Amino acid sequence: MNPLEEALKIKDQIIAWRRDFHMHPELGYEEERTSKIVEEHLREWGYRIKRVGTGIIADIGKGEKTVALRADMDALPVQEENDVPYKSRIPGKMHACGHDAHTAMLLGAAKIIAEHENELPNKVRLLFQPAEEGGNGALKMIEGGALEGVNAIFGIHVWMELPSGVVGIREGPFMAGVGRFEVEIEGKGGHGASPHETIDPIPIAAQVILAFQTIISRNLNPLESGVVSVGSIKAGEAFNVIPERVYMSGTYRFFTSETKSLIEKRIEEILKGTTLANNASYGLKIEEVGPPTINDPEMVSLARKVAQNLGLKVEEVPKTMGAEDFAFYLQKVPGAFIALGIKNEEKGIIYPHHHPRFNVDEDVLHLGTALEVGLVFERI
Amino acid sequence: MNPLEEALKIKDQIIAWRRDFHMHPELGYEEERTSKIVEEHLREWGYRIKRVGTGIIADIGKGEKTVALRADMDALPVQEENDVPYKSRIPGKMHACGHDAHTAMLLGAAKIIAEHENELPNKVRLLFQPAEEGGNGALKMIEGGALEGVNAIFGIHVWMELPSGVVGIREGPFMAGVGRFEVEIEGKGGHGASPHETIDPIPIAAQVILAFQTIISRNLNPLESGVVSVGSIKAGEAFNVIPERVYMSGTYRFFTSETKSLIEKRIEEILKGTTLANNASYGLKIEEVGPPTINDPEMVSLARKVAQNLGLKVEEVPKTMGAEDFAFYLQKVPGAFIALGIKNEEKGIIYPHHHPRFNVDEDVLHLGTALEVGLVFERI
Amino acid sequence: MNPLEEALKIKDQIIAWRRDFHMHPELGYEEERTSKIVEEHLREWGYRIKRVGTGIIADIGKGEKTVALRADMDALPVQEENDVPYKSRIPGKMHACGHDAHTAMLLGAAKIIAEHENELPNKVRLLFQPAEEGGNGALKMIEGGALEGVNAIFGIHVWMELPSGVVGIREGPFMAGVGRFEVEIEGKGGHGASPHETIDPIPIAAQVILAFQTIISRNLNPLESGVVSVGSIKAGEAFNVIPERVYMSGTYRFFTSETKSLIEKRIEEILKGTTLANNASYGLKIEEVGPPTINDPEMVSLARKVAQNLGLKVEEVPKTMGAEDFAFYLQKVPGAFIALGIKNEEKGIIYPHHHPRFNVDEDVLHLGTALEVGLVFERI
Amino acid sequence: MNPLEEALKIKDQIIAWRRDFHMHPELGYEEERTSKIVEEHLREWGYRIKRVGTGIIADIGKGEKTVALRADMDALPVQEENDVPYKSRIPGKMHACGHDAHTAMLLGAAKIIAEHENELPNKVRLLFQPAEEGGNGALKMIEGGALEGVNAIFGIHVWMELPSGVVGIREGPFMAGVGRFEVEIEGKGGHGASPHETIDPIPIAAQVILAFQTIISRNLNPLESGVVSVGSIKAGEAFNVIPERVYMSGTYRFFTSETKSLIEKRIEEILKGTTLANNASYGLKIEEVGPPTINDPEMVSLARKVAQNLGLKVEEVPKTMGAEDFAFYLQKVPGAFIALGIKNEEKGIIYPHHHPRFNVDEDVLHLGTALEVGLVFERI
Repeated sequence: MNPLEEALKIKDQIIAWRRDFHMHPELGYEEERTSKIVEEHLREWGYRIKRVGTGIIADIGKGEKTVALRADMDALPVQEENDVPYKSRIPGKMHACGHDAHTAMLLGAAKIIAEHENELPNKVRLLFQPAEEGGNGALKMIEGGALEGVNAIFGIHVWMELPSGVVGIREGPFMAGVGRFEVEIEGKGGHGASPHETIDPIPIAAQVILAFQTIISRNLNPLESGVVSVGSIKAGEAFNVIPERVYMSGTYRFFTSETKSLIEKRIEEILKGTTLANNASYGLKIEEVGPPTINDPEMVSLARKVAQNLGLKVEEVPKTMGAEDFAFYLQKVPGAFIALGIKNEEKGIIYPHHHPRFNVDEDVLHLGTALEVGLVFERI
Repeated sequence: MNPLEEALKIKDQIIAWRRDFHMHPELGYEEERTSKIVEEHLREWGYRIKRVGTGIIADIGKGEKTVALRADMDALPVQEENDVPYKSRIPGKMHACGHDAHTAMLLGAAKIIAEHENELPNKVRLLFQPAEEGGNGALKMIEGGALEGVNAIFGIHVWMELPSGVVGIREGPFMAGVGRFEVEIEGKGGHGASPHETIDPIPIAAQVILAFQTIISRNLNPLESGVVSVGSIKAGEAFNVIPERVYMSGTYRFFTSETKSLIEKRIEEILKGTTLANNASYGLKIEEVGPPTINDPEMVSLARKVAQNLGLKVEEVPKTMGAEDFAFYLQKVPGAFIALGIKNEEKGIIYPHHHPRFNVDEDVLHLGTALEVGLVFERI
Repeated sequence: MNPLEEALKIKDQIIAWRRDFHMHPELGYEEERTSKIVEEHLREWGYRIKRVGTGIIADIGKGEKTVALRADMDALPVQEENDVPYKSRIPGKMHACGHDAHTAMLLGAAKIIAEHENELPNKVRLLFQPAEEGGNGALKMIEGGALEGVNAIFGIHVWMELPSGVVGIREGPFMAGVGRFEVEIEGKGGHGASPHETIDPIPIAAQVILAFQTIISRNLNPLESGVVSVGSIKAGEAFNVIPERVYMSGTYRFFTSETKSLIEKRIEEILKGTTLANNASYGLKIEEVGPPTINDPEMVSLARKVAQNLGLKVEEVPKTMGAEDFAFYLQKVPGAFIALGIKNEEKGIIYPHHHPRFNVDEDVLHLGTALEVGLVFERI
Repeated sequence: MNPLEEALKIKDQIIAWRRDFHMHPELGYEEERTSKIVEEHLREWGYRIKRVGTGIIADIGKGEKTVALRADMDALPVQEENDVPYKSRIPGKMHACGHDAHTAMLLGAAKIIAEHENELPNKVRLLFQPAEEGGNGALKMIEGGALEGVNAIFGIHVWMELPSGVVGIREGPFMAGVGRFEVEIEGKGGHGASPHETIDPIPIAAQVILAFQTIISRNLNPLESGVVSVGSIKAGEAFNVIPERVYMSGTYRFFTSETKSLIEKRIEEILKGTTLANNASYGLKIEEVGPPTINDPEMVSLARKVAQNLGLKVEEVPKTMGAEDFAFYLQKVPGAFIALGIKNEEKGIIYPHHHPRFNVDEDVLHLGTALEVGLVFERI
């Protein structure tokens, strides 16, 4: 069985599925229609189905080991600006990150795998997950048993930073871990004309914000990567009243637990010292939202070999500060998260992920399907 | 005619009026009930009435010159916490700055003046104005003709910083001028994980806020008084998105036009330079809300003499950074804004203006009435 | 005896003395020549002399009470740039603050007082003190017994902020108290390419400097006056090495003990909190160098009366943030520090104190002498 | 000819040379003794010598192409704290970075190469350069013709971050480029009590220092590496005088010309905007001191192959923010800068470069020699 030939046969079907999903985008944990279509096909092809909310765990085959393939299904709250026949029919919602393509590619793989069930060297598990975008749907799937008995896991993401059809892969840290902090600086409010009767939290917040810059500029090893960004700040309503409190929220990014700990420690130290310096107090809620996505070297080798055997061009893809909840699977099971290039300047497919004009080069979707099939037909 | 004796006779009436107004507080430009009551009395006593919205211009007497007396009538959006029989009956509204007392005192004076109309050395004009609290009702009154033909003007404010019954007065600058600024710092938004693709306006705002501190600490003569306070700041909604813009508003205070100009110039320079340093841009709306309240030395002398003749204790009262729209009258007509002490620790009357437990020592209201009467019976 | 007439008689002598002192300036505690000349005259005129280093305590007369007059004698390390016949003959030293005039005026007064010793209503003590400029010579004089038995003390300072001949006087706080702080911020040095292995004290110092601005802009009552200035900062030698420590020194100014305490408390709090926020440590040496100069109201009244009786124009002079060690005398004995205007635009006498082109209008020196004489002939 | 066997034969000689150089350290451009010894040996072995100050260009062999090998010879102004028989005999000077080993290794290679001159596939040029430590001796060598006709160049640095004997190599950017900036912020000096009459440059410098932090934290791609460090700051002498100027110097590091340009642009923009915001002015001298050390991929492959053929363990070595003037050669000629591990915990050889207890594991020096020999016997 040649995965690429099989995939080529159903290329149009894969594209048709993708367009259907694209026209009917559903936000995280609302993937009712999408998952219903997926489930119906999988049942038809003989998969054993377990539902986890709008998520699907689908098993096929026999064997000692289990290899899992994962696709995410959720769309984004973005208003599509592409002028295409399969444009989103849902105002304010759009598959602007390619999860429609991921679902279609894996559906294609599911069909081929089912047709060749007897040739499978391992059991295969397909994971169609909800809510990758900020919802940590992967965690729900894991809680629902998605990784039970799984020995290896692979996921593919369409990738605008690579030319169409190129497979990007990277050992070790690939996508960043992400954290969130919420800060409250409490001073003492009062009249804007009488600052001496207050503890003005606004200059204190300003000092904190500038001190946060030194976490990256002074405390982090310049050869490591990290980010601390304040995303929102809010204090006061009236122009002439010094407010009681300043609220801030922000994100931090990291590739290692050392960097994560350093950032978390420094944020708290800066808040503690700066408020102490000003007779103010602070509240801090800080937590990891998701770990870094760390590819297993052996699984990367395997994937590279499979891709090369299919005749695909494989490149080492640079790290990115973006995050991906596939990281949760990789915390528990060795695997690899793989990029599939979709940039095609001739077709005008150049807009970044999450952009209202984001699109995917559909002519490479079957390559993703072929790669997924290839991976599960490899003995691990 | 002895103003103090006359005032004593109607002391209870003044207190009754005050309590009535206190129970029915009305916000700025909504002083319908209050002004209706005032107007009815004034008409009954023979005043010539001109309406300026909820404000009243009331004339009496003959003569070449006109002396004006002013009371403000508006209440504040404060929930009263006093436990008194005459507690505010309107939830969320309260006479927490003593304008009820001002109106009652001037109503008392109006009655006495009318009874002694023939003895008046000048024409008398009474101004019952709306919206002193942030509404600049004085400006509306002036637009409505309040100062036409007026040669001198006096106003009394009950004063928690002075013991009950003490008259506080000060030559020259007494209360601060007030300005408002609204700032927009425009950077370039983007993902919190990719600060290099943005122009993050939040650290820029932090730099601006800290630079604003140097206006007072470095640029202003330490022997002068001034304030620059940022009252509100707002930017961003999401923890992981760098916002496009930061909005800030604030107030500044001054006693001289030099200080006002210095502050306004420095605010703009800091914004200009700091945004330039960061490839950002800014918007600034900055304007004087009200001028400083500057008492005329001759009118202060006159008032001091009148108060001392009435046997009242007179003190020089310190300047305050608070603002008062009486300043607009004093920009056009010589006059004096006078403080009447109401602090009475035995009675628990100690809470500052605008406080939910603010109250006035009613036993001194007739002194204010007497002072007002005394002023208009003085030849100017 | 008419002090002004007596002073006029010796006007040329006073000027001659002043020019002699001007040509031979001596720095603090080095006033050998000056004090020798002064002492010789005083002995000749019958004063009882006590030496306190280069300072002189000279008594004359009888009586229950003692009134003291003080002049300071020290010059400054300034290179004179005036082109006058009596230009400083000592390179790099100059009477750029008028102490030559003070000494000459008091010498003139000494002569007149001695001539009218029998008419004196009190004992008189003359204090010719060293080292007013940064040396706190007043403290040495007090330690040497200068105030023993003294009931009142007066001092005159020539004043460029007043027109020639005008006497400036002010009740209560007149000149500022002054403090000095020395700060050491200790981080951890290292290579400039490896900030993460250091605790870089330079950004910490920057945070401290900006936080110091908020002491005046946020913590001090805007109706009070205060200053916090960092005068020096020093850290590191090499461009590519992160230094271990930053050193800073600075001054603060105040008129009340509350302001002094507030500033001292806030400086320490800011250092403590900001170094804590950065895992650094600090050293702080902070101390009052001299108290505010606070004139006694009764002594001010007396001086005003004396000046007016002499026909001099008297004005209330504004406070100044400058400091004066006369303050130490006023901490112990009621008295007044009085300004004598010397600004004369026609004569080009306009340069500020300590300026290389500072000069005094010699035509008013005898007025100072007359005022001093007048003060000691007043019964206290 | 087996380079490793040849090198083993003279292992003791290499160590002896190293110890001799170690005992007689010479600072940059003062390498008189060292270069004299080197030259004598080279002449003895038949090299054609050209002198470039204390540097040596030594050629041998025939052929169309030329392969260069480089060693640096200078020591550091460090007082040695090792207790070894071959301890530095020059107080305050020490080979604390291993250049003694580099010279000895290359001298060993020179001997072997000369003995096998006839087998050489290319001409060989040996570069013994002065002043690598901050002196940019490489530039002097290039000016002296060191690279004329050279087709490839290799250099070896002993490396404390690798275990003894391990060869570390990296394609592309390996060591950072380094720049230096000198800043002068000019305000307007004056009395510490009168900040409003000055333009205080110290808070301006503080704003600049904190804004510099945002270059790395906000402007640089978090996946890139860069550093901006202020190394020195100096302003003012007196605690009570606001100085006219602040002087600062610092370093910046980068691996790409984009990062270099970004940092240089941002430093100037921040200075320009921040001084503009404060009516101050600035001076800036900013310049690259040395470029990044960028290894040519083909030369890296060659070196890896040679090392592996010798049976050495080869690892990819991480980038470092440290700088190396070998970078100048690599700007002009393809080549590779190679690390040779010397860390040996058993022998206590663990102290970092430039440390007073730095040492090298002498038992691996002949490996460096062998690698150098191997490289020039490879056809390029």
